[in-house]
Amino acid sequence: MIRVVLLGAGNVATHLVNAFSIAKNIDLVQVYARKKSSLKHIQKNNISTTTNLDELKDADVYIIAIADDAIAAFSGQLKINQNTLVVHTSGSVAMKAINNNFRKGVFYPLQTFSKEKSINFKTVPLCLEADHQQDLVILEKLASAISDSVYFINSKQRESLHVAAVFVNNFTNHLYHIGKTICNEHEVPFAILQPLIQETANKILDLSPYDAQTGPAKRNDSNTITRHLEQLPNNYKEIYSLLTKSITNTYEQEL
Amino acid sequence: MIRVVLLGAGNVATHLVNAFSIAKNIDLVQVYARKKSSLKHIQKNNISTTTNLDELKDADVYIIAIADDAIAAFSGQLKINQNTLVVHTSGSVAMKAINNNFRKGVFYPLQTFSKEKSINFKTVPLCLEADHQQDLVILEKLASAISDSVYFINSKQRESLHVAAVFVNNFTNHLYHIGKTICNEHEVPFAILQPLIQETANKILDLSPYDAQTGPAKRNDSNTITRHLEQLPNNYKEIYSLLTKSITNTYEQEL
Repeated sequence: MIRVVLLGAGNVATHLVNAFSIAKNIDLVQVYARKKSSLKHIQKNNISTTTNLDELKDADVYIIAIADDAIAAFSGQLKINQNTLVVHTSGSVAMKAINNNFRKGVFYPLQTFSKEKSINFKTVPLCLEADHQQDLVILEKLASAISDSVYFINSKQRESLHVAAVFVNNFTNHLYHIGKTICNEHEVPFAILQPLIQETANKILDLSPYDAQTGPAKRNDSNTITRHLEQLPNNYKEIYSLLTKSITNTYEQEL
Repeated sequence: MIRVVLLGAGNVATHLVNAFSIAKNIDLVQVYARKKSSLKHIQKNNISTTTNLDELKDADVYIIAIADDAIAAFSGQLKINQNTLVVHTSGSVAMKAINNNFRKGVFYPLQTFSKEKSINFKTVPLCLEADHQQDLVILEKLASAISDSVYFINSKQRESLHVAAVFVNNFTNHLYHIGKTICNEHEVPFAILQPLIQETANKILDLSPYDAQTGPAKRNDSNTITRHLEQLPNNYKEIYSLLTKSITNTYEQEL
């Protein structure tokens, strides 16, 4: 049995609570949050909660799941045994940000979480890091109890994964937003584009994105590109041009 | 029974052949292609084929599914009864590009097709256009026989849909490629990002892309943005900056 205290009550913390609650060999002994109101949706699971850092219970692992900027300072306020294993869940904060009093680690679930939308945690990739081999063993047990997708990733690799995630998640979602804006302007239902969006994501389960590329930029079809640019407002024109240039460059290298 | 002659043997034509072959009330009387070799994979279905434009059979609708640039000239070469209904399947070519000898229409399946990958045509949105009301009725019957998702879209709307599709399909796929390139450089398996990519696409079935947006650009988290930019090669830096600026502008308008 691995005893866990979870520090935080945001999106990531909430999904971890749900996953740990139904996992075997995991004892979620306590959840901490600064404000009582943040803990309301967690108490329903009969889990012990606290808003007082002086009342933290004993555990094998303390998981900090709070805002990136707050992790370093918060870890310095923990009044728990020195040399305990303390990990954070951030994609973009280095492991060494955790206070030197503790054995350090990272337990980073690489997925986009919304409070409203439930998720099958078994499919969420967990990226693990620790200074000591025995801590990696603990983290791997913990991770395997809730997910089928566990990776050992060092801080430098994690930083690059986080940048890559910005491209495939944040920026992709913004392209969806631009697509919807164009549809709205011409009174076309955005729903028409939904199957294309789903298929674009599904296609790269079988093909590499390099091989899956299609469209006027790939074909270097300058007539279509010019006609598209004429229709777009200036801000979207700039994005269209830059991404078209990037695609063209990617495939020109072949020649 | 609607009699159809299909002109072309590329990706779109091939998927249409498969869809029409199993549809009720549709008689696919012939498929034409310039080269005999292009028709090999179509003949397996016991469908009459030809490479000779003089041998086109009678039909209620002729569907031109060939390269965009070739549609106008090709439609001028058709030796069929004047005033027959002739449609093309392109997202980016105007209906009026079809030769004036014929009743004109558009039958545009908005999806990304690969020859290797089969698709459930029932979910493919079909965007229809015609000059005459009675032709729209024919096209709607034809479309409903193979898809549950049928829309009436004029040429101007279709042009804007095509631009929007470039953003959500071509450009999105290129962002996947950039994500994979970053992973490769740091020896991180791209598979770690797959569940995130799928969830990003799934999320907007429930939420608008505007509401689904997350990440450093949305939060205006300049520390993370600076650190990300430092890691990127120049060509990707430019894309990161421009998309970050576009996201920031989108949400600043709220204030």
